[in-house]
Amino acid sequence: MIAVMQPSATAEEVEHVVEVLRLHNLKAQISQGEERTVIGVIGTGFPDDLLETLEVLPGVDRVTRITRPYKLASRDFRPANTVVEAGGQRIGGTEFVVMAGPCSVESREQLVRTARGVAGSGASFLRGGAFKPRTSPYAFQGLGIDGLNLLEEGRRLTGLPIITEVMEPAQVERVAETADVLQIGARNMQNFPLLKEIGRSPKPCMLKRGLSATIEEWLMAAEYIMHHGNPNVVLCERGIRTFETATRNTLDLSAIPLVKRLSHLPVIADPSHGTGHRYLVQPMALAAAAAGADGLIVEVHPEPDSALSDGPQSLTLEGFDQLMQTLERVLAAIGRPLAMPHARLRAASV
Amino acid sequence: MIAVMQPSATAEEVEHVVEVLRLHNLKAQISQGEERTVIGVIGTGFPDDLLETLEVLPGVDRVTRITRPYKLASRDFRPANTVVEAGGQRIGGTEFVVMAGPCSVESREQLVRTARGVAGSGASFLRGGAFKPRTSPYAFQGLGIDGLNLLEEGRRLTGLPIITEVMEPAQVERVAETADVLQIGARNMQNFPLLKEIGRSPKPCMLKRGLSATIEEWLMAAEYIMHHGNPNVVLCERGIRTFETATRNTLDLSAIPLVKRLSHLPVIADPSHGTGHRYLVQPMALAAAAAGADGLIVEVHPEPDSALSDGPQSLTLEGFDQLMQTLERVLAAIGRPLAMPHARLRAASV
Amino acid sequence: MIAVMQPSATAEEVEHVVEVLRLHNLKAQISQGEERTVIGVIGTGFPDDLLETLEVLPGVDRVTRITRPYKLASRDFRPANTVVEAGGQRIGGTEFVVMAGPCSVESREQLVRTARGVAGSGASFLRGGAFKPRTSPYAFQGLGIDGLNLLEEGRRLTGLPIITEVMEPAQVERVAETADVLQIGARNMQNFPLLKEIGRSPKPCMLKRGLSATIEEWLMAAEYIMHHGNPNVVLCERGIRTFETATRNTLDLSAIPLVKRLSHLPVIADPSHGTGHRYLVQPMALAAAAAGADGLIVEVHPEPDSALSDGPQSLTLEGFDQLMQTLERVLAAIGRPLAMPHARLRAASV
Amino acid sequence: MIAVMQPSATAEEVEHVVEVLRLHNLKAQISQGEERTVIGVIGTGFPDDLLETLEVLPGVDRVTRITRPYKLASRDFRPANTVVEAGGQRIGGTEFVVMAGPCSVESREQLVRTARGVAGSGASFLRGGAFKPRTSPYAFQGLGIDGLNLLEEGRRLTGLPIITEVMEPAQVERVAETADVLQIGARNMQNFPLLKEIGRSPKPCMLKRGLSATIEEWLMAAEYIMHHGNPNVVLCERGIRTFETATRNTLDLSAIPLVKRLSHLPVIADPSHGTGHRYLVQPMALAAAAAGADGLIVEVHPEPDSALSDGPQSLTLEGFDQLMQTLERVLAAIGRPLAMPHARLRAASV
Repeated sequence: MIAVMQPSATAEEVEHVVEVLRLHNLKAQISQGEERTVIGVIGTGFPDDLLETLEVLPGVDRVTRITRPYKLASRDFRPANTVVEAGGQRIGGTEFVVMAGPCSVESREQLVRTARGVAGSGASFLRGGAFKPRTSPYAFQGLGIDGLNLLEEGRRLTGLPIITEVMEPAQVERVAETADVLQIGARNMQNFPLLKEIGRSPKPCMLKRGLSATIEEWLMAAEYIMHHGNPNVVLCERGIRTFETATRNTLDLSAIPLVKRLSHLPVIADPSHGTGHRYLVQPMALAAAAAGADGLIVEVHPEPDSALSDGPQSLTLEGFDQLMQTLERVLAAIGRPLAMPHARLRAASV
Repeated sequence: MIAVMQPSATAEEVEHVVEVLRLHNLKAQISQGEERTVIGVIGTGFPDDLLETLEVLPGVDRVTRITRPYKLASRDFRPANTVVEAGGQRIGGTEFVVMAGPCSVESREQLVRTARGVAGSGASFLRGGAFKPRTSPYAFQGLGIDGLNLLEEGRRLTGLPIITEVMEPAQVERVAETADVLQIGARNMQNFPLLKEIGRSPKPCMLKRGLSATIEEWLMAAEYIMHHGNPNVVLCERGIRTFETATRNTLDLSAIPLVKRLSHLPVIADPSHGTGHRYLVQPMALAAAAAGADGLIVEVHPEPDSALSDGPQSLTLEGFDQLMQTLERVLAAIGRPLAMPHARLRAASV
Repeated sequence: MIAVMQPSATAEEVEHVVEVLRLHNLKAQISQGEERTVIGVIGTGFPDDLLETLEVLPGVDRVTRITRPYKLASRDFRPANTVVEAGGQRIGGTEFVVMAGPCSVESREQLVRTARGVAGSGASFLRGGAFKPRTSPYAFQGLGIDGLNLLEEGRRLTGLPIITEVMEPAQVERVAETADVLQIGARNMQNFPLLKEIGRSPKPCMLKRGLSATIEEWLMAAEYIMHHGNPNVVLCERGIRTFETATRNTLDLSAIPLVKRLSHLPVIADPSHGTGHRYLVQPMALAAAAAGADGLIVEVHPEPDSALSDGPQSLTLEGFDQLMQTLERVLAAIGRPLAMPHARLRAASV
Repeated sequence: MIAVMQPSATAEEVEHVVEVLRLHNLKAQISQGEERTVIGVIGTGFPDDLLETLEVLPGVDRVTRITRPYKLASRDFRPANTVVEAGGQRIGGTEFVVMAGPCSVESREQLVRTARGVAGSGASFLRGGAFKPRTSPYAFQGLGIDGLNLLEEGRRLTGLPIITEVMEPAQVERVAETADVLQIGARNMQNFPLLKEIGRSPKPCMLKRGLSATIEEWLMAAEYIMHHGNPNVVLCERGIRTFETATRNTLDLSAIPLVKRLSHLPVIADPSHGTGHRYLVQPMALAAAAAGADGLIVEVHPEPDSALSDGPQSLTLEGFDQLMQTLERVLAAIGRPLAMPHARLRAASV
């Protein structure tokens, strides 16, 4: 960290900064410029707010951090890509993975039909919400444990591993019994008790970017999970909140190549929540693949018009199948194969 | 809700919308214009996503909601101001309340000194964090139960009721034993399991606005708590995230008179988190009062430079005392008295 | 437009709304619901602020527009895609066009080298700034007329048509003598005198989206130009301003398929300004193509490290050539050919 | 400026940075840390994009500016407050000034009635738009020269100096003949040809903050004007664009005390455009005064319901009078008198 003093700063003000650093067991390296004094901070274990603490001291003009606040999640720490293995699938390797299924598990018929459909079209994972975070207390809150049981049945029938959301620390153990990947929703990206509990779980997780989270905060949330013991974190860009209201969120695809540069963790994209409109899902799914994502998570519903949640952004089974065909061609153009476990399973069973 | 069809919409497309409404047990009122057909939706218990469901149907151009999604929190539902009583104080009445204290409870000495200081300057509540949500897993996470005990001691010594944060559902009962007001942090505004649990608590709560929450979402979060049984919700504007980085957040003071119009709940402002800079706290505190806030929550620390968290935005005891004197004059100018319980306590003890 | 009255609205308040409409030569269609009265506005030529005017009348709860404010730019008005012809090239047709060149024209040597390089790699247009909008008065402001002359030389040598920025109404005529396409910068998207003047010009133009412009405002700016007589408007998504600071802007790729749905105008993307980082240009260029853009505008510089402006986001000639090769494969995957005029020119000259 | 190298940076990469600096006639001061090398940049006349140029060099991790990019506008450069004198009034001195009048000049009757009304209630300036920037080409575009003539009549009748908007460089000279203060609208904050032309004018100007302009960009725009010769710049905070749609903009009042700290220029607030709702104007006007603004600009219309523009956010004459009375009390509470030239004029004429 570097503190730049004002041109008018006095020797006493410089000395005061040095003393404050000493209070925090840190050393100062003073560099006297022509116009300004610059103070470098030396030591380890900087307090979280050190930057802001220095910034308000008399005579200080600006303070800048020169290292990133996350370590375990950083590519400096681990240069090679992390490949997360879950339910026999690999996320972040050469193959591109697609997670698909309904927003909410609504009934046996709906789930089984969707699971079979997406498996047949080449999905690698079955997604489906049993516990649903809803902005209205009057909206459908999910089937809960019954939903988890239906997901297990979907897995039995199709062989697809399951990704499903967990909303509070006390649920982690139970949801982890069913899920192959624990999903952390955008609104929980900074639910620190939940991150800690998932950090202690042996199951991989997928961490959605918060609606207003910077890329740095997102990687810090991954750091929380990794610091508490779980290295198997998949990141998911799902759109940020901006002034634009024509789309539900603004899918920030530039975050994908940027995160791949800053971190070794896999990154996938959610074009369904990212846009909120069915007709934008395919173009943005293809765009995410072209931008270098490691996979997609897509909402699919056999009858979107009667879905209990997020119908408007769900693809039909036919729409999903069409997406997968175009996706495979776009991936081929950038030299990346599409993971198609079900095709392999079927081949194996012959 | 009103669905406006495209000029080119066919009779079949109009009929399809009507059918989808029927599926959701709703009726359609069709109004044939010169250029377009407009369909009004009639019935009760609209699904959460009805708007988006209709929006993607073939032939539909736009859908608009014509009533607000919250009920209990709305001024239509309850025209008179709600006054929340907590620890003998009243929030949302004629008197303006000030909550003050350190960001984190750090030590007995720090807490007692601050509590006595702010009480002497006219604060109505003692604030202090025992459980701290921190963006870094490497930062000070609060004293926990020891912090709650110190807050109780602060209350014994000064008579000030306590407001302190609760971070997860499993903590609510324990924190409610100590706290007079349960604080819900900005990052937890849409932590629905936490909102439900606080809804079941008999203790009043203060709900901070999320970093990227619209005013409608904020009121929906209050609705969650009220719907689960707790009518004593105080709202707190603490700054939203915008493109501007010169301040920690952008304190949206216009939210204050707007919320007072839409809702009967009390609203206070947090100029400390809202700005992140000590030198902006007093101007924005006075501005919040002038804009019609029912109170303030302010960070005060006897030695901000060595604070374990949020030092840069904390006022010194002297700074707080100076703020209170100016604040009293500004409040008088708009015809509002400042609650000064300690002064009364002292007077009573004479 | 529809005005929804409050449940408590009186008959006088309803009558007042009707009178205000009459003042603006509009009629009211009153529909009495169970709880609320809804007033439909009938007539043509709504004043710009009618929505806001009604919204503040006593008893009014909400007002919603049910038609879009732009006409000429809308796909309702013109269902078929507009193809803009400029300098012998077609923008918005089947072929994907790439505009490339330096941010600023700096010297004959720089421009000629870049023009030849990008032409050889398959660019359709030569871009280059002669008049530069710079946020600092101390920064290089462009070569002006000399820059235009160098662009003309670049065109003579390579056959590529020219796109270059015009910054003020008084310059339009002179810049249009040289340019094949007039570029309107993001900061000028709502410079209405400039839009009017370009509307009167016979030359096609490219309208960049403003940093904080909604898609509707962007289309309204196109409407200005079209209304004043120029139907040849190409839209360019170049990133919006959000809270994220890790990228220069947030390239909103979902705007591309959305605009293609709302409007018949061609849309291209600018991954250079959209990201601000050279290493993000190729992934986002491919993503834009996959999302359905009609073309790209890309900054290329033979020696980016010594560029007088925007060096950090400029591709080298080699980087551009590599981009074009991958781009061609991605476009093929979605069934779209890349326009390669220079290849054709060369073939013709054999 | 300081460039921090990656931990893995090689000696060649460090040397490359040094060479690039040399190319720009700058020197490097290398400081070898335990983990990283930090390179300080020494010299004057940094290119505008130097930061971004260095940032993309191989081996570079982060680059930070340590001085601000504006000079003339900075309080470092001129520690004492600038007081702008215009039409016999002083802006930025001890007295608080209020500019009031209609959004658009519509007719003689409307203007004269408003001018007399606001003068009688204590306004210091008459505002009114003759040339109007409108987002729709179909909306009322202002009376033009006729509007300027009516403003002159308003000034003759009331003695109030005039502030009115100028939209393009070619208009500056003509508008300056009438105006006492030239207003630069939010959408023109980075219309650099306009800023230059106003920089050459002898008339003071008021520079509105752009919808998505950072405080630094706003001060850079002021720097443009000052650099071209006009030191009499008044800044005006008028709300920024955020994700919140319940208000027209988000009035960023924290910008006021922050700009007062960074710059010596006067700052006023526009609660009319800042909120877009009449019922929010008074609370936010009082809040701006409490936050330390030097004045206000407020829209007032004798019959807002029939205004040709911005009616919904205009105060009535009665509403304005009531605002002025409360404002005077709030200002007194913070020790600041309200400028009331008309009262003085009337007193003088007795």
